[in-house]
Amino acid sequence: MEIRDLIRQMGKKAREASRKVASLPTSVKNDVLLQVAEELEKQKAELQAANQKDLEAAKERGLSKALIDRLTLSDKVISGMAQGLREVAALADPVGEVVKMWTRPNGLWVGRMRIPLGVIAMIYESRPNVTIDAAGLCFKSGNAVILRGGSEAIHSNLALAKIFAAALEAVKAPPEAVQVVPTTDRAAVNELLKLEDYIDLIIPRGGEGLIRFVAENSRIPVLKHYKGVCHVYVDREADLEMARRICLNAKIQRPGVCNAMETMLVHQAVAEAFLPAVAEDFRAAGVELRGCPRTKALVPWAKEATEADWEAEYLDLILAVRVVSSLEEALDHIARYGSNHTEAIVSRDYSRAMRFLKEVDASLVLINASTRFNDGGQLGLGAEIGISTTKLHAYGPMSLEELTTTKFIAFGDGQIRQ
Amino acid sequence: MEIRDLIRQMGKKAREASRKVASLPTSVKNDVLLQVAEELEKQKAELQAANQKDLEAAKERGLSKALIDRLTLSDKVISGMAQGLREVAALADPVGEVVKMWTRPNGLWVGRMRIPLGVIAMIYESRPNVTIDAAGLCFKSGNAVILRGGSEAIHSNLALAKIFAAALEAVKAPPEAVQVVPTTDRAAVNELLKLEDYIDLIIPRGGEGLIRFVAENSRIPVLKHYKGVCHVYVDREADLEMARRICLNAKIQRPGVCNAMETMLVHQAVAEAFLPAVAEDFRAAGVELRGCPRTKALVPWAKEATEADWEAEYLDLILAVRVVSSLEEALDHIARYGSNHTEAIVSRDYSRAMRFLKEVDASLVLINASTRFNDGGQLGLGAEIGISTTKLHAYGPMSLEELTTTKFIAFGDGQIRQ
Repeated sequence: MEIRDLIRQMGKKAREASRKVASLPTSVKNDVLLQVAEELEKQKAELQAANQKDLEAAKERGLSKALIDRLTLSDKVISGMAQGLREVAALADPVGEVVKMWTRPNGLWVGRMRIPLGVIAMIYESRPNVTIDAAGLCFKSGNAVILRGGSEAIHSNLALAKIFAAALEAVKAPPEAVQVVPTTDRAAVNELLKLEDYIDLIIPRGGEGLIRFVAENSRIPVLKHYKGVCHVYVDREADLEMARRICLNAKIQRPGVCNAMETMLVHQAVAEAFLPAVAEDFRAAGVELRGCPRTKALVPWAKEATEADWEAEYLDLILAVRVVSSLEEALDHIARYGSNHTEAIVSRDYSRAMRFLKEVDASLVLINASTRFNDGGQLGLGAEIGISTTKLHAYGPMSLEELTTTKFIAFGDGQIRQ
Repeated sequence: MEIRDLIRQMGKKAREASRKVASLPTSVKNDVLLQVAEELEKQKAELQAANQKDLEAAKERGLSKALIDRLTLSDKVISGMAQGLREVAALADPVGEVVKMWTRPNGLWVGRMRIPLGVIAMIYESRPNVTIDAAGLCFKSGNAVILRGGSEAIHSNLALAKIFAAALEAVKAPPEAVQVVPTTDRAAVNELLKLEDYIDLIIPRGGEGLIRFVAENSRIPVLKHYKGVCHVYVDREADLEMARRICLNAKIQRPGVCNAMETMLVHQAVAEAFLPAVAEDFRAAGVELRGCPRTKALVPWAKEATEADWEAEYLDLILAVRVVSSLEEALDHIARYGSNHTEAIVSRDYSRAMRFLKEVDASLVLINASTRFNDGGQLGLGAEIGISTTKLHAYGPMSLEELTTTKFIAFGDGQIRQ
């Protein structure tokens, strides 16, 4: 079959399946998730055999060790996927939740009820465990899903999808509710992006190049996040010991992720008391500092920051540091260079902290806590399928609720419009 | 200035203004709305003089009487706009509402707070009162707005925008919070659709052609609604007198709007008791019926329906009628031909009504009430900027809440991630 027909066919089947999945009882959905979890562990040998094909191809193509690590379905990764599905099964089903109900003067009883989005397409790179994580969240929220993973993981992804399909068939649910694109041909992505009649939402996950390509070429709504240029602002009124702990945690605890701090802003009134000491901590942790002139005056060994540093998402042990003259200057800096991801203030002053909370435009704004909490699990949503830094539909971590929408419902007893 | 630079400049200014508008106190926003309302009435003569230029140009170009009516800023239209603004001023401010808050095991207190979307661009046709209605809703919800109306209303729209700008300046709010594109050049629309750095949401309102053009060419998220092919399903267990009243109201009360009924589905068990009588009512009201063979057997004077009739949005005194053998057949018909707009069932049977409510995928699903209630005002949202039939972000009438999003907020006392 030609790619175009293959992908259209998948879209059509996903659309049909979505109608059935939307009204599956919660208990049946949970049974499927638990069954998949069990089979992942039971069929570990088969999965790892499929994964081996991908790993061998990757080695032949000379992929880096880091990429090969990400590609590997180790025992730990497999039990992690199973555990993830059990956690999703334990989460409340968002479908059918009535968010609000009210009565109109004519007696019409009106409400908003959560329903699945329909069909979600996920386009991602590398890690095959995303296949199971995304399938679990989409299915639990009543959606059908089309998964397009990296070409280097094709055998692993197809083996994982087979297990999901079998569990769906066992409860007489349509196996097309979870489909993996069975070709590595890049044309498949272009075809997916055109299926506006069948697909309701596209979620790309991966490098900025992939995300930009999807955003620019899709006719279907896209939920995306480009990068995380996150700041911690140490206010004039900060508890400096707390600021030290938060800044170190935000930078060092896991520097390679999107919610790590990339720029530290320090109010001039506390710069002298705070910067030289915390700089030593950073140096001890192997962090390279790139500072503004006022930072360099206090931390002579810091490199000089250029304009590019204020825009950088290092994802590494590098930190830009800037001394600001006021809270306003910190707010302006964040408005200009921030990426609407995660922003934190450290302050003991009520009105300054509240002003920061209200005025900063980011998917998560924190007072006196580390930026590293911007994560579905950490915020208490249970699990996440990604973090949106655009404002339509979802802003911040996306979990089950964000994979639904609401429809209006109305209970009448014969009302007609006057 | 070239169009491209002009539009980019407007986008940049709107973005700057949006930051200020986002944190305006509710009382200031309401003062602006009430001030504009007052000035609209005070400056009626000037407005009508500007409108006269548009009307003369329209007559020269030979526009239809219906279009010229829509274009006219009559006394009634002007006081309607003023009244609309007063109603929006009276609505609760969605900005700052905290939708939910919860505490994490580590003591972090997490919530979701409503914030404006940022900058909204509205692209619409004809009626100049949309300029004021849209500006009022966008401004009250803390957004900046760029308005691009029909070229035939350019003088009216600019005069209306001038009044809004003056009211903004009077409270020292940025006048660029409400801007009307000052050119009728079509290239302006193309430029607007590219400003993804400055505009957060595009709302097109008008004919299907305009909406498709915007949806296909925009790099910015679009909230849209193509058409309303709405059904009333008269169930086997319907109260036939109630069904009659609802069907007549849904078709006749205002046939030219998107929430009017276009196809009536009747269960075969009640077809004989229901159809001939209601057909007479429709005939008396001047409604042309187009029926399936079973309908024609009962209503011989009905025209024969073709496949195209099941897909038609007549917006006229024409009704497609189909007899179905079961609730399932009705659900299938709606899933196939419906436009996800408004669907209603008339039934006294609890489980059949609930099944319809849950399974039908439409922005509003009603039990025992007319489809004509799918409207922001009628459902109790206060006012609306349009009805979305796509599921991302908003599904159904869009009012103040739908012009906002939520950001996560977190109150800590030194939490760091383990």
